[in-house]
Amino acid sequence: MFDERISQALAASLAGAEATIPPRLRAAMASAVWGGGGRLRPKLCLAVAAIGGDPHPALTDAAAVAVELIHCASLVHDDLPCFDDADWRRGQPSIHRAYDEATAVLVGDALIIAAFEVIAEAASVDPARGLRMLRALSRASGHRGGLVAGQAWESEPAPDLARYHQAKTGGLFAAAAALGAISADLDEAHYAALGAELGAAYQIADDLSDALADPDALGKPVGQDAALDRPSALRQLGLEGAKAALCARRDAAMALTPSDPTARPLRALIERAISRLLPPVELAIAG
Amino acid sequence: MFDERISQALAASLAGAEATIPPRLRAAMASAVWGGGGRLRPKLCLAVAAIGGDPHPALTDAAAVAVELIHCASLVHDDLPCFDDADWRRGQPSIHRAYDEATAVLVGDALIIAAFEVIAEAASVDPARGLRMLRALSRASGHRGGLVAGQAWESEPAPDLARYHQAKTGGLFAAAAALGAISADLDEAHYAALGAELGAAYQIADDLSDALADPDALGKPVGQDAALDRPSALRQLGLEGAKAALCARRDAAMALTPSDPTARPLRALIERAISRLLPPVELAIAG
Repeated sequence: MFDERISQALAASLAGAEATIPPRLRAAMASAVWGGGGRLRPKLCLAVAAIGGDPHPALTDAAAVAVELIHCASLVHDDLPCFDDADWRRGQPSIHRAYDEATAVLVGDALIIAAFEVIAEAASVDPARGLRMLRALSRASGHRGGLVAGQAWESEPAPDLARYHQAKTGGLFAAAAALGAISADLDEAHYAALGAELGAAYQIADDLSDALADPDALGKPVGQDAALDRPSALRQLGLEGAKAALCARRDAAMALTPSDPTARPLRALIERAISRLLPPVELAIAG
Repeated sequence: MFDERISQALAASLAGAEATIPPRLRAAMASAVWGGGGRLRPKLCLAVAAIGGDPHPALTDAAAVAVELIHCASLVHDDLPCFDDADWRRGQPSIHRAYDEATAVLVGDALIIAAFEVIAEAASVDPARGLRMLRALSRASGHRGGLVAGQAWESEPAPDLARYHQAKTGGLFAAAAALGAISADLDEAHYAALGAELGAAYQIADDLSDALADPDALGKPVGQDAALDRPSALRQLGLEGAKAALCARRDAAMALTPSDPTARPLRALIERAISRLLPPVELAIAG
């Protein structure tokens, strides 16, 4: 139900006059954003705002777009030869393969800036609310425990797994939920905690996919964590341990979700997200 | 007179608890920011705010820091092997040489995010003013005619020189002056125009330095525009033409500067900036 709304808001956030956007950059940004992801983070933002009746839908849209743009930027930079050196992403050539490395670096930069811009532009009607969103977004993204810190922990010796996952994945899920809460006058900390649980579940599932999944079905290379000697839930907890941790996180997210009808989209989102991620785990445990 | 104030504000913008910032990222960000630049853009921001009596100095500081962080980020990414492949910057190894490419990509990302964060954090006392700043900053930086667009025009066939320079350099100078004006209740458009003139003068001088200067004196490689077949004022206008264009831009910036005593720092800044840039041009014309 949220797909069309997210697509429209994303398209608007990237649009601009022909003469102002270099054509190659424009095309590469479009590839990065329309590559077929599940839009889990913006859906989380919208589902949380719906619990509060979503009284400021334009700001909710901007927030949902912003977290998705930061996520897309991180994927483009993460795929670069100096990081994962991934030739494929969701079954398509990665941005530096389809274009070139310079364009991929600029696409990431442009998407980060666009994330902050879309909220700043939408927030004129309610500047204080917009600023709260921008602060939450920057904390979740930056060098102080945010997404960039998470990527940087990968090149540190023996990082703490929980801190690394929280920074690399949990933070942006937490921000997605927190921004939805800010937009709808709900408790920001409560929904940030919910988002962090869902993000942690997702990160464990992603580690398991990396180790267990069929690369053709996944549309990207597998075995990257072991090949690049990165911290991973599977490597730290083992298969059964990782699966138990994933289910515990899912249950914690559910426990933080209100039981009334306005939270139905959020409950459905959590169930769908986890059940989509579980099959390779089930198969591996069965096999 | 602005140096100490800028240094303090910059240091505060990057600080954070030991455990939250990966050590290698922290060190590389410090190298990128404390590499010895002239701080021309933040000084421009402070000098413009001084004309209006700088009634909101904490917001002016944040704005000055933000434009400098965006500038530093662009240098780090511009030096990468996929762009200029520059081993040196201001006489020091560039970030990807001193650390590695992955760290250099993350440093740029982190500095961009920190630029938006520093304004968002400072603006709680005056959200509407902060949002105006954030909008001006994102427009000057992003894919729609901003700094990222300027870098991307370099890989387009036959870009328009004026548009390319405006995006790559003029925009951030314009934003530096505009943010100072926003902070001090001055006419944003007037000072954006002044900043754009100064930025255009600076870009012409930079093109001339690239072609004419002694690389040891400059602290970075020269001849990059010709080697990389990039658009350049020298290549388009010739030496005398470029020098005339530079002086015309300087005069235009001066003409936009008020004549009263509060504008003394701004006049001094423009004179100093241009006279520091002119010697290689004078030498080449005399020689």
